[in-house]
This record gives sequence, C-alpha cells and structure tokens, in this order.
Amino acid sequence: MAAAELTAQQLTEKHNPTLFKALDAIATRAYWSPHPEHPKAYGEGSPFEGSLSAADGKAAFDALLGSRFDLGQPGTDGWTGGSENGEVSPYGIELGVEYPHADLDVLLPAMRAAIPAWRDAGPELRAVVCLEILARISARTHEFAHAVMHTSGQAFMMAFQAGGPHAQDRGMEAVAYAYAEQVRTPGAAEWSKPQGKRDPLNLSKQFTAVPRGIALMIGCNTFPTWNGYPGLFASLATGNPVVVKPHPRAVLPLALTVRVAREVLAEAGFDPNLVCLATENPGEGIAKTLAVRPEIRIIDYTGSTAFGDWLETNARQAQVYTEKAGVNTVVIDSTADYKGMLSNLAFSLSLYSGQMCTTPQNLLIPRDGITTDAGPKSYDEVVTDIAGAVSGLLGDDARANALLGALVNPDVKARLEAASGLGEVALATREVENPEFPGAVVRTPVIVKLDGTKPDAEAAYLSECFGPVSFALAVDSSADAVELLRRTVRDKGAMTVGAYTTSDEVERAVEEACLEECAQLSLNLTGGVYVNQTAAFSDFHGSGGNPAANAALCDGAFVSNRFRVVEVRREAR
Amino acid sequence: MAAAELTAQQLTEKHNPTLFKALDAIATRAYWSPHPEHPKAYGEGSPFEGSLSAADGKAAFDALLGSRFDLGQPGTDGWTGGSENGEVSPYGIELGVEYPHADLDVLLPAMRAAIPAWRDAGPELRAVVCLEILARISARTHEFAHAVMHTSGQAFMMAFQAGGPHAQDRGMEAVAYAYAEQVRTPGAAEWSKPQGKRDPLNLSKQFTAVPRGIALMIGCNTFPTWNGYPGLFASLATGNPVVVKPHPRAVLPLALTVRVAREVLAEAGFDPNLVCLATENPGEGIAKTLAVRPEIRIIDYTGSTAFGDWLETNARQAQVYTEKAGVNTVVIDSTADYKGMLSNLAFSLSLYSGQMCTTPQNLLIPRDGITTDAGPKSYDEVVTDIAGAVSGLLGDDARANALLGALVNPDVKARLEAASGLGEVALATREVENPEFPGAVVRTPVIVKLDGTKPDAEAAYLSECFGPVSFALAVDSSADAVELLRRTVRDKGAMTVGAYTTSDEVERAVEEACLEECAQLSLNLTGGVYVNQTAAFSDFHGSGGNPAANAALCDGAFVSNRFRVVEVRREAR
Repeated sequence: MAAAELTAQQLTEKHNPTLFKALDAIATRAYWSPHPEHPKAYGEGSPFEGSLSAADGKAAFDALLGSRFDLGQPGTDGWTGGSENGEVSPYGIELGVEYPHADLDVLLPAMRAAIPAWRDAGPELRAVVCLEILARISARTHEFAHAVMHTSGQAFMMAFQAGGPHAQDRGMEAVAYAYAEQVRTPGAAEWSKPQGKRDPLNLSKQFTAVPRGIALMIGCNTFPTWNGYPGLFASLATGNPVVVKPHPRAVLPLALTVRVAREVLAEAGFDPNLVCLATENPGEGIAKTLAVRPEIRIIDYTGSTAFGDWLETNARQAQVYTEKAGVNTVVIDSTADYKGMLSNLAFSLSLYSGQMCTTPQNLLIPRDGITTDAGPKSYDEVVTDIAGAVSGLLGDDARANALLGALVNPDVKARLEAASGLGEVALATREVENPEFPGAVVRTPVIVKLDGTKPDAEAAYLSECFGPVSFALAVDSSADAVELLRRTVRDKGAMTVGAYTTSDEVERAVEEACLEECAQLSLNLTGGVYVNQTAAFSDFHGSGGNPAANAALCDGAFVSNRFRVVEVRREAR
Repeated sequence: MAAAELTAQQLTEKHNPTLFKALDAIATRAYWSPHPEHPKAYGEGSPFEGSLSAADGKAAFDALLGSRFDLGQPGTDGWTGGSENGEVSPYGIELGVEYPHADLDVLLPAMRAAIPAWRDAGPELRAVVCLEILARISARTHEFAHAVMHTSGQAFMMAFQAGGPHAQDRGMEAVAYAYAEQVRTPGAAEWSKPQGKRDPLNLSKQFTAVPRGIALMIGCNTFPTWNGYPGLFASLATGNPVVVKPHPRAVLPLALTVRVAREVLAEAGFDPNLVCLATENPGEGIAKTLAVRPEIRIIDYTGSTAFGDWLETNARQAQVYTEKAGVNTVVIDSTADYKGMLSNLAFSLSLYSGQMCTTPQNLLIPRDGITTDAGPKSYDEVVTDIAGAVSGLLGDDARANALLGALVNPDVKARLEAASGLGEVALATREVENPEFPGAVVRTPVIVKLDGTKPDAEAAYLSECFGPVSFALAVDSSADAVELLRRTVRDKGAMTVGAYTTSDEVERAVEEACLEECAQLSLNLTGGVYVNQTAAFSDFHGSGGNPAANAALCDGAFVSNRFRVVEVRREAR
C-alpha cells in the first residue's frame, strides 16, 4: 500500500469537529447542516476549500459529456453507455458517457481483499475518511447539480440542493450514526470478577467492529445521490467495501461519487477498490446477479416494490434495506389557515412533478365539507381551491419549469395521461414549454376526484401512481378519513402522512393511526416546510415500520447490523 | 385500567440507579452484576427484598408439582401438560404441571389491545417495570433453580447460577440496550432553520418509539431462562407484548417468568396481557402456527438449525433473531501452561455434559505434536492427557454429578453412544450413578480421535454433535488448523473459538480468521474462565456474523429494530 498523502492525523484534525457536531445534531434533532444550500456559497471566496464556482461546475459537467469515465477498476472488461446505450437527459440532451463494465469474478475478490486494512483502520479513521469524501463531493456540488439534473429531470435548483447539500447531509448523518454505533463498545476492556477470598478472575478483552462483507448499493433514477448516500456511507463507515450499481438512467452522479471516493481512499493510504462502480449493458440485469452473489452481505435499494420484494425474498445471504412504493395521504378535516394550506399543498403536489416518494397522492376530504378560517368549504370548493392554488403557482412558465423539472421517463407521462380517465378531472394537466431545453417533457399535475367509499375506485387510489397525479377522495367523515388512512398505510405503506385539522379529537385520531401504523406525520403545514421534505439530522425519512420501506433514514437500526463485534479475550497478565 | 399499586415514581427511584450502572457496564465492558451467584445470598438477612431462602425456594417448587398453573389469560381453552403429557425431569421425577392452552384468536387480539398504553409509557418507565420484573424473579432464584434443574438437567449449582443470576443479568443487559437505543432520539425537539433575511422556518417535533407488534419468544430445552430472557426483555422494553412459547420439556421456568411479569405489569397499572404464555399439546406444533401469524412481528428463537432456518425463510412478516447449531473449535498449537490448559479444557468439555451451544467440539492438534512448558508433546500424548484430565476431574461421582448434570433427552444419549463408532476412542464414556435421583441419565464425555485431513471424517466433525462428544482432530500443521477453523466457522458457524499458542504468528492467524469469519475467540485460557462461559454486560454471546446465530447477545443490533420511531411535526407557534 502506498504511503498516505493524507494522514490519519490530518483527516482527524480537519473533520473531527464536524463529526462531533453531527453527533450532537442527531442527538438533539435541532437544525444543523455543514453544507450550504445556496449556489453562490461555492467557488472563489467560499470557505469551502477548492470548491467549484457555478461556471467551473458547469464546465466540469460539460467536459464529461461524450467521455469515457475510466475509474481504473480491476476486472474492467468493456464499456457501457456511450452514444448508443447511454443516459439521455429528461431535458433531451444525450450524455453519451461510457462507464466501465466489470467482470465480477475479478472485481469482487479485489474488493474483498481491501477489507482487512479498512477494518483495522477502526471507526474513527473510517469516519473521517468518509467525511473527506463528502467534503470533496461538496466542493463539486455545482458539477453534481448538473449531473443530477440531467439524469433525474429535477429542475436545476432542486438538483443542486437535493442532489448536493441535502444528499451530503444524509451521507454525513449515516457516517455519524455508524461511528456512534461502533464506538458504543470500547476497543479494549479489563474485566475483573471478584471470587470472594480467592484471587479475582482477570481477563483482557479486545473488541473489533468487523464488516459483514461487500455492500451493494442499488441507485434510483430520481434521487441517485440523496437516496444512495445513506446506504453507501453507512456501509463504508462500518468497514464494508461498497459496489455501487446505479440506475441505468442515472449513472453519472454516482460515477462521480465513486471517483471521488476512490481518490480519497487512495490518498489516505487505503485500497481504492473499497468503492467500485458496476454498470450494465441493456437487459443485463446486473442488480439481480450481484444481489445473490455470496460476497454481497448488505444491500441498499430504492425503487419499485416488485424488485424490493424480490431482493428481500431472494438475497437471503444479505442484510437488505429497501425503500419501495407507498401511498401518501393527506387528511383534510379543517384548518385555521385555509390560504396557507392551499399554497402549501399546491407546492407539495407540484415540486418535481410529484416524482418524490414523499409526494402526497390521496387527499381525503369529507364530502360534507370542512370548516376553515375563511368559512365553511364544501368538498367541491376545497378541491377547486386546491386546483386553483396549483394553477396559480404554476401559471408562469418560468416558475413552472423551476418547480416541476421534467418527467423522468415515459412511464410517468403514460400514467399522467391515463389518470384523467380514472374519474372527474378537477385539474387538468398542462404542457409547459422549456425554452432552454426544448426536449424536456414538462407537465403540470392532474387532480382527479374519486369517491373514497366506492370499492371500484380503490384500484386507482390504493396503489402508487408515481408522478404528478393526485386524487381528491370524498369520504363520509373525518373519522372515515382516519380509517382509510390507517388501512392505506397498513396495506400499501406510506413515506409521509399529512393532516390539516383544528380539532383536538381528529388530531389525536390521526396521530394514533400514525403511531399504530408507523408513519411519519406532518400536521397543519401552511408555511415554508412541506410534507414531502425532510431534513437530515432531524427528520426521519420513512419509518421502516410500514410496507413502504423496511428502514428509516437514518437511525441506529440502519447502521447497527452492517457490522458485528468480534471479541478476543485473554487471561490478564 | 386499575390504579397502579406501583407508581412510576416508586419504580424509577428503586431501579434507576441499577439501570444507570447497567448502562455504564455495557459501555465499559468491565465486570458488573447486581445478581449474586451464591445461593446463601438469598433468603432471610439478604439485602434482596423478599428473597426466598434455599428451603423456601425448594418448598415453592415442590408446591408447583402436579398443580394447575393458572395465569388468568384470556382465551384459555384447555390445559396442556399434566400427569400424562407434562414435563419429566431429566432427573427422573414427573413435574405434572398443567399449563393454559390458548385460543390464539382471543389471546393475540387481547395482547395487541395492550400496546397503546405500554407504548405511551415511554422507554424510561418500561425499563424500570422490566427491572422490577427481574428483581422479583431474582428474589425467587432458589425456586427457579429447581425449575431449571428439573427441565434442563443442569446440576443444581449450574441451574442456580446460569438459570438465575446469569439469566437475570442477560435480561437486564437487554433492558439497558433497549433503553439506550430508544433514548438516542429525544422525545421532542425544536427545529429552526435560518432563511437569510427572512424569518427562520420553525417546527416542533415529537418522536415516539413505537413497537413492531407482538413478539414471540420460543424457548429452548437447555437454557430456558438464559437464552429466553434477552429476547423477552428486549422486546418488552421496546414496547412489544411478548408471547412466550416454551420448549415442551422446559415450560416451568418460563411459566414462572410469565407469572411474575404479569403480576408486576398489573401492579404497575398496565395490562398483564403484555406477557402471555402459549403452550401446546403433543404434536400441535404451535411455534410454526404462531410464527407466521400476521400479529407476530418479532421472533426470538434458540434451537435447531433446521427450525431456525425455517423461521428465517417463512416468518417473513417478523424480525427473526435466531441462535442455531454451530461447531466450536479449539486450536491447540502450543502452550506455556500445559497443566492449566488440560484442566481448563477438561472442565469445558465436562460442564453440563457438553450440552452447551458454547462447548468445544473439535480440538485441532498438529499430528507432529506441540511445544509446551512441560516439553514437547506428541498428538497422542496431548489427546491422552486431555482424556486423563477429564477422567481426573470426573473421577469422583459426587463431583461428576455436580459438574455433568443429567443428559437432557434421549437424543443426546443416542449421539453419545453412536460417537464411539466414529473413530478411535481416546476417552470412553462412563455411566455415573446419581444417588439422589436414581432416574437421572448421567454420562461422562467421550473423546474420539479423527484425522482432520481425511474427507471421510468430515461428516462427523463438520456437523454439530450436541452433547458430551468431542473430536481430537489430527491436522498437518497449525496453519492447517487455522484453515480448518476458518472453513468450519464459515460453513457451519461457531458460538465460540478457543486457541492455545505461544506463537505470535499463530495467534495472529487465529485472530485474523476469527475477525474475518466473525467468531468470538478465547485465547490461552488456563484458569477459572472457560471458553463456554460468557458474562453479561462484558462478553458477547455469539457474533451474529456466522451461521450459528444471526444476532449476538447483546448489542445495539439486537434491540434497534424491535421498535421504530414515529415523528409528528408541526409548525412552531
């Protein structure tokens, strides 16, 4: 192994203060982030060492287009992507990047060989190496923003924030949890058991956190970094090499991530093969192949319920962490801020064209209407007013483009187009021109009225309709809304639940339903926080306790079984 | 719910100091236990409030014989056990106790109904209620000792210690881990995110640890309390009701446990149905039925690999924690204390007739012999000397009875009898009379010589031969011994590994094998600590990282996924 350019001491001095702040934040759940959200915080004059300006980040991204992304990985036996099979931006441009294709029988043994030195580095050094990786990623946030934008279809500002600082926050959160979990047991202990009048029994004990094996992180199309970093960093910080298998439409952000990780690992004196990329040719289905390899002992996955269930059923040699589909509900019982509710909901339904696992889908509204600070509102009025709020928010095309981004793939477009056949359309979708990227498919959300008490409507509203589609469900009462909420979470899962009510009784009923069915609840949001957004270090993303996900981001359970503790005990001398 | 006889304040004042000491112990791993090992520490004059003396404990046990053990559980639709189908002590006496049989369609809903109040009690109160249960069990240690002895076949002193204080320690350890895990996230937080010149975004957040559902604890025959308490208390302390399904031959210790738990829960104002007993008629197979009920969300199991694997494969709605079979190895390379090694190994092989999941099975000895402080010893000499040490240790029948206990069931006896046909017998088994219990089947261990390099011997030594059977395996070198150790742990699992060596190189190789294959290692034990014993709060039992067990007792991973955290957030006023 080469002499380290980055010493443990340098890394520790640089990153320990941040690590301790992160540990403090996850314990207090107060607001904290070391990663600025504003694009102007990066580049020249920024406190962030070596950070790329907007122009430099864009130039770095442009330089990647049509290039071969060589990572110097062992077992590279060809190239995927490129001009024929490569990523095409939802904004219409071809990325044309070529990525290494791996012979797994070479790659995986090389990754395993990297384990002992990384294990022996210990939790502290692993943590600060991970933080250095995140710092280098943070410095390239402008470059990542373009890569995320042109794979996910997120609008630039969202790609910048969710794909940059917010993803980095979630990665750091995982590092903090991993570190805390590993140091709960000390590295060594002296044990002395009294034996009455005889000499005590004395043992010296050593405790070592040992990794499970190779971790597989399967990336998703919509949030390649945000959904990918927690698993990637949780596994790496607990000593496991990580093979990153991106979604074929969203390779670039994770390829960039792997490159940075490999650079830092090598500079710190570790084997860069601790983090490798595995990409595939069309139809190769490499995720399935990798998932059941005996070397793979941990899997993190975000995506469809079908493949998530397949992983849980078949990858039995691995610890499997999945985030799958769910059906998110908002109960609308009453409000003391009707206008605030409407604008808050309109934003939630519009952001990234509803292509978030956290976007509300079913709006449950009593058919006899609701009470508000603006007087009683009938079911029809509420639906009309929500539709109006969405229309108003997206009336200006520039604003609409900035909020909606582009539809990520043709399936979303097809679902959107089919939605208007499901019931009475309260808000029709509208095509929005994107002058900068004429190839972008940009659509405003559709809202469909359904009767939430009619069994024949269930097929529509009790399955996830991923994309800019929501259902305004008429229910007989708020009590029935809570029952439907409960049934939806139990049977279909939910990443988020929202509720608007001024009634203590209804509030308590919704809370109880969420506690019993294990769903994260946002109550009466009328300002600048939205039900579909969570903040690392404070909010949990998912609960891990309903069918939408078997893990939450991020908690002790997310990290504690990624390593085991091996004890060596000797008689004390 | 009845007014609590035990208030939260009383329980907290009484048990918080102990809880904090337990939390300190699991963090330092230094020696600690609040439960005395000596039988005379209990009874009159003892600092343990209301504790039963030896005579009172025996009388309490005797009063149970032939009785109906009514727990007042809902859905009791008959009685199991009794004079016809009841437990028969390995010491020959019939217990004849009748236990309630449950209609699960009544029992499980009653248990679920108990959840909300127990959840709302919070981690602190749940912890001290659990500690009160343990304190009441501790006070009845003498009674439990007889119940454990006459179901497991352990000798009295071992039944007293392992079934009493050591089991209570493991239960308390689980409570401490569960408490620590739940309070990592605060109950509430204020979150304020700066927005530049605009007002900050302010949210009030509540975090609630919510249980998974009903937990199922499936008890084992040999250590009903020691192996049962960690799962039972980990689940209960994290808010889950627990249905206890004892091994049909070892019901009484867990029935007593359930009775105490129900008493304490009721006195503390909670629903006693948070802990229930489920017993079965012969051939009913209630564990399988329960394991796949949708209400069951957590399963703890100790027993055969076959049923453990079945649970992991089929009980997919539950978190499944299993301890299964393994093959424990001792590498004998060299020693600086030959006599100490011999006596230490002899004790390990003899204790409870080798009926511990931690008892060494395969002794790996280079065929060219080993170096010792008493000069070089050939393979034959080492085997002969170990055999001699066992013979010497068990030469006196009274001592033999006190160490060996009784064979727990006819299968163990059959395996023991078959073992002498597997190879050259280095130490033959001997029948020991038990004058107090003439019906007891007491046998000394057999040691069989095998060639560890002959593939046809593998069928014998590469499967668990549970009971007083060990194999002295000749290997070509210590390096080969380490390779065989590695292969054994990887393929068959191991709860323990031992090694004797004075060579730094061999020590390092054994350590590396244990770190890579994830097994707990005891090095050069020659005194009063044995490879098959672990101490709660300091030693891990199993690693959770090899096929012998998917969890360790006890660590963060053992508790962190028994509950989830539900967040409710509101705009701050």
